Amino acid sequence: IMALRARALYDFNSENPGEVSVKENEILTLYSEQDIEGWFEGTNSKGERGLFPASYVEILRSDASSTLNNNSCNTSGDTYPDSRYQQHHPQQQPHTYQQPSPGSDDDWDDDWDDSSTVADEPGTVGGRYNDFEGNGPSTYRVSTSSMSRGNAQQAKSSATVSRNLNRFSTFVKSGGEAFVLGEASGFVKDGDKICVVMGQYGPEWQENPYPFTCTIDDPTKQTKFKGMKSYISYKLTPTHTQNQVNRRYKHFDWLYARLVEKFPVISVPHIPEKQATGRFEEDFISKRRKGLIWWMNHMTSHPVLARCDVFQHFLTCNSTDEKAWKQGKRKAEKDEMVGANFFLTISTPAAPLDFQEVESKIDGFKTFTKRMDDSTLQLNATVNEFARKQISGFKKEYQKVGMSFKVLSQAFEMDQQTYSAGLNQAISFTGDAYEAIGEYFAEQPSKDLDPIMDLLALYQGHLANYPDIIHVQKGALTKVKESQKHVEEGKMDRAQAEGINDRCNIISCATLAEIQHFHQIRVRDFKAQMQHYLQQQITFFQKITGKLEEALQKYDNA
Amino acid sequence: IMALRARALYDFNSENPGEVSVKENEILTLYSEQDIEGWFEGTNSKGERGLFPASYVEILRSDASSTLNNNSCNTSGDTYPDSRYQQHHPQQQPHTYQQPSPGSDDDWDDDWDDSSTVADEPGTVGGRYNDFEGNGPSTYRVSTSSMSRGNAQQAKSSATVSRNLNRFSTFVKSGGEAFVLGEASGFVKDGDKICVVMGQYGPEWQENPYPFTCTIDDPTKQTKFKGMKSYISYKLTPTHTQNQVNRRYKHFDWLYARLVEKFPVISVPHIPEKQATGRFEEDFISKRRKGLIWWMNHMTSHPVLARCDVFQHFLTCNSTDEKAWKQGKRKAEKDEMVGANFFLTISTPAAPLDFQEVESKIDGFKTFTKRMDDSTLQLNATVNEFARKQISGFKKEYQKVGMSFKVLSQAFEMDQQTYSAGLNQAISFTGDAYEAIGEYFAEQPSKDLDPIMDLLALYQGHLANYPDIIHVQKGALTKVKESQKHVEEGKMDRAQAEGINDRCNIISCATLAEIQHFHQIRVRDFKAQMQHYLQQQITFFQKITGKLEEALQKYDNA
Repeated sequence: IMALRARALYDFNSENPGEVSVKENEILTLYSEQDIEGWFEGTNSKGERGLFPASYVEILRSDASSTLNNNSCNTSGDTYPDSRYQQHHPQQQPHTYQQPSPGSDDDWDDDWDDSSTVADEPGTVGGRYNDFEGNGPSTYRVSTSSMSRGNAQQAKSSATVSRNLNRFSTFVKSGGEAFVLGEASGFVKDGDKICVVMGQYGPEWQENPYPFTCTIDDPTKQTKFKGMKSYISYKLTPTHTQNQVNRRYKHFDWLYARLVEKFPVISVPHIPEKQATGRFEEDFISKRRKGLIWWMNHMTSHPVLARCDVFQHFLTCNSTDEKAWKQGKRKAEKDEMVGANFFLTISTPAAPLDFQEVESKIDGFKTFTKRMDDSTLQLNATVNEFARKQISGFKKEYQKVGMSFKVLSQAFEMDQQTYSAGLNQAISFTGDAYEAIGEYFAEQPSKDLDPIMDLLALYQGHLANYPDIIHVQKGALTKVKESQKHVEEGKMDRAQAEGINDRCNIISCATLAEIQHFHQIRVRDFKAQMQHYLQQQITFFQKITGKLEEALQKYDNA
Repeated sequence: IMALRARALYDFNSENPGEVSVKENEILTLYSEQDIEGWFEGTNSKGERGLFPASYVEILRSDASSTLNNNSCNTSGDTYPDSRYQQHHPQQQPHTYQQPSPGSDDDWDDDWDDSSTVADEPGTVGGRYNDFEGNGPSTYRVSTSSMSRGNAQQAKSSATVSRNLNRFSTFVKSGGEAFVLGEASGFVKDGDKICVVMGQYGPEWQENPYPFTCTIDDPTKQTKFKGMKSYISYKLTPTHTQNQVNRRYKHFDWLYARLVEKFPVISVPHIPEKQATGRFEEDFISKRRKGLIWWMNHMTSHPVLARCDVFQHFLTCNSTDEKAWKQGKRKAEKDEMVGANFFLTISTPAAPLDFQEVESKIDGFKTFTKRMDDSTLQLNATVNEFARKQISGFKKEYQKVGMSFKVLSQAFEMDQQTYSAGLNQAISFTGDAYEAIGEYFAEQPSKDLDPIMDLLALYQGHLANYPDIIHVQKGALTKVKESQKHVEEGKMDRAQAEGINDRCNIISCATLAEIQHFHQIRVRDFKAQMQHYLQQQITFFQKITGKLEEALQKYDNA
């Protein structure tokens, strides 16, 4: 087999063990053209072996013309550091999540397309709430030319309603525009039907009639290719099958990309971030597993996501049956009911929604998400700092007090007085007690503050999703307004406008159902987490009290 | 009446309200030649009126030759600052105490002498443990000249035993040398007899057969001279008389000076430090009262100090009977049984002590006091810092968490969902609970750490006394060794040496009795204070737990 070579596109300075530095234009030897979660393993021109970011290099093929595997990955060098609690600015997102990526596939078929690799725009993941109205109705332009929009549905309507010129608009990318304009088409099987029903608080997703959960256990290190490649395998056991399957992080990553592509107005929970080095350290594995558990909990809680084919395939396909796995994988990747077509699968309540009411609800939700985003960022920063203080400062203070008591008891032991022995021992024990209490403070955050931070990270992922969802909804409402104007001006017939109305109703039902779901799990999750936190805090302070009572008793006969 | 004028000896820059700056050589007008606790009130050449340190000026008399009232006072400007917990270096003495001063007397007779104003020497108050052996036996010189030693006993022995040339030696100043050399004489009344008895652990002071305690209450501000002078009066009620007397700080200060002068080998507890400005602030008054209570507690606990005439006069003389007060005051100041003569009042157990054993015990105690001094300094620094952290850092951290919960609950209140109202209220309550807990942390040090610091301050005062006490004892032992040598060399007759032996035995008995008393009250005080501290800490953590339990309950119906 010919040595695989690549050219460095940029300088990369190794910052962690296992990484290797490369210089721009340096020729590198790769061990495989498949990256390991965004990193290549190879040798630089000095013969140093290690990892470097896949996106920093182009593979030199025999025809030396294309850069096939230049995947978008974690190239920022901003991997999660080992020290768990970092000082950071409140406005900084504490847990960075990955953009949905086409994934990497060193043992699967290499049949990705890079259609989901998109440029940043306000309103995409991580773009937060910085004025995503900028891409909204006011920037729409009337156009009669039919635009090529990448791989998506080609124009087939008579283009009497304006089309957005901005091909990076979420409304366009998501397929929302195409659907509203009636450009989506596909055969919806009965099994694909997704029902929005009218509930107590408005439209909501029909409940999953077969609810289930799924445990994630025993992350174990696996190797292949004579130990050259290692990965962590997690044991997943869904309650509805009771069959254990083994999945890797990259399977989660692949699944996540499918879900994001498929569901335009559903907030797919973010998977824990990628990390190249330190991947096999216990702390990291434990943290990732916790993140995956939170993710899984949100997946199985979601009436639509929990039931969708690709997720079920992921949960139930036997890991050893490679053929079945590949079949399901290909099927998912060829799923036609994604993006614009997803909306075709939605069945709505009989009575159409009042769009003014919808708009008002959406606006209210937008305000809410901004406030929640700000407050969770603040809480996260506070909690992070609080944890850091307990691990360092609080521990140190209590242990310094403990140490000083110990030193005093040692001085007292030199008093040559037999009658003070009891007191000296009691003071010494008190010193030990305060040292133990210092340790309690340092241990506590992992029991109560870490779960709070995990929760906040998950919800910050959701909150990062909502600008896009709201954008799609707002885009649809704008189309309705435009079509009404066109009808009034005689430029559009009523039937066409009614079609747009109906399709906007579908998007509105789905969006409001998703918002309703969000509130329900939010209330459930925050309640549970606050209770857990307080319970842990109570146990903590009781433990301290117990230790002090023990110390106090030592003085009884002193 | 002629205006009283004074000349500034040094520059003084006012640092606090009520003080006035003066320049070297500036001519000042005084309102009285009596200082107010070390400060004069007057007008500088610019006509600014206020306080300046008495020791910074000399009074210009009609004969313009003497500086009568140049008392040693708190001239360092190092008054105790308002902010209670200061960062300081562990080696710094946290509570500074005053040297015994002849006092100030704006309404008493002006009949002080300044004999107790002494230059610093290693081993005096504040000198700590920096090698006070330097003035010990090795520096003794043989001399036959009779030395003038201030106001003390004049030479009357035949000076065959060496006399210390260093008139600042504690051994000399205390009267220890004079006593050992047989120079002390006086008529000891039966009531003056102080018994050292042989107890379980060696020589000890005979217990006070009529033990009593004394409360200090209701510090109230009094004024006189049409409000020009103000002072705080404390109500003292001794249990053995049940008669309340009113005393001012300067009375304590006067008493303290008498006691220090009278008892060479007794550790007189230090009175709380002086402070010029802020004297009438509530915090200061409360702190001083606490200090006086600690002081009183140690005074009444001491078998010798508790019973001595000057203390009894101080405790029992009716404040309104000015004549009786002045009589007692003059009597105390003319007491002949002070210094060298104090030792005449001591009656020892029949069997004389083994001086080798005495020396070994004293050496052991010296080692002990050094260690205790180091460890109490360290504990004090730690506790001070711990208090500061709780008042600032800990409080801030808990309140920041509380605030973040509050902000989250406020964001959640914008969710337009009726079913989350309970959760929002519960989170809001949790926020309040954490703010309250922050407050608990800030309030706690005054309940548990302050008393520890008061205790340590008192004991640091004792530990500062012991180098002098040990020095006197060591001086006496050295004289015994010298006399033995002189006898061997035929320079001294046996009877004279035996007299020295006997008198050294008296000093040794007193010193060991005092050391024994120190250990007993130390064990009593530290045990009580540690129990108090732990009990307060337990109550504190239980209060936190209670608050958290209250918060947790709010989620039950959320």
